[in-house]
Amino acid sequence: MSEKINVTWKDEMAFETEVNGFKIILDADEKVGGKNRGPRPKPLTLVSLAGCTAMDVISILKKMRVNPDYFNVEVSGELTEEHPRYYHTINLRYIFRGDDLPMDKLQKAVNLSQERYCGVTAMLQKAAKIVHEIVVEV
Amino acid sequence: MSEKINVTWKDEMAFETEVNGFKIILDADEKVGGKNRGPRPKPLTLVSLAGCTAMDVISILKKMRVNPDYFNVEVSGELTEEHPRYYHTINLRYIFRGDDLPMDKLQKAVNLSQERYCGVTAMLQKAAKIVHEIVVEV
Repeated sequence: MSEKINVTWKDEMAFETEVNGFKIILDADEKVGGKNRGPRPKPLTLVSLAGCTAMDVISILKKMRVNPDYFNVEVSGELTEEHPRYYHTINLRYIFRGDDLPMDKLQKAVNLSQERYCGVTAMLQKAAKIVHEIVVEV
Repeated sequence: MSEKINVTWKDEMAFETEVNGFKIILDADEKVGGKNRGPRPKPLTLVSLAGCTAMDVISILKKMRVNPDYFNVEVSGELTEEHPRYYHTINLRYIFRGDDLPMDKLQKAVNLSQERYCGVTAMLQKAAKIVHEIVVEV
């Protein structure tokens, strides 16, 4: 199976794309000739990763009948100093709030995503060290 | 340098995030319990790659005084059959239109991006075979 996307130049540093029918404008920072009309491309890699694993986890937890009140994945990427600058280390924090959140089930859901289901993790872990932690906030 | 992003659960399979101040909703397809209120996370990896290299190329060409009338990067990713499903092969087609587009300069700009500047290429090429071609349309 193949997926195809077009990223089309608008003007200056701005590009327009459409993903699953949703338009996204990409643009650079003013410092490098852009006009900040949309997000930078590189952090979308982090969004792709966090979104992929977040959807895995919430759907696995639903099957386990674990229903958090709040769920957030905080992803942070450490960039290399030298060009090409990429994320050499990525931290994923799975943050939950709710009344009945057994840690063993949260861990199982996260591990299933990180080890078996999340294709973006599978790609990026060949280039970056990906570490994760689970946080239950009271 | 570090970049941090939060991907926060809305409901069902929908998540909300903000990248450089721009809100993006992620959602799954109806077939897997989503409501298609935003793009899937995985193809954002392709957008990240194509946007990164597209911005490199247009800014290098500007320095070379090459000004295309039209520029589009078409990115297609071939997914593995087995879980975790990721892009094992990625094709980048750099498509240009315009009056004065010397192929040696186009190639130089694309090669500089692919070999030296594009951090997303640097990451993804550790997991996927990335191939590219340059097309000048008349």
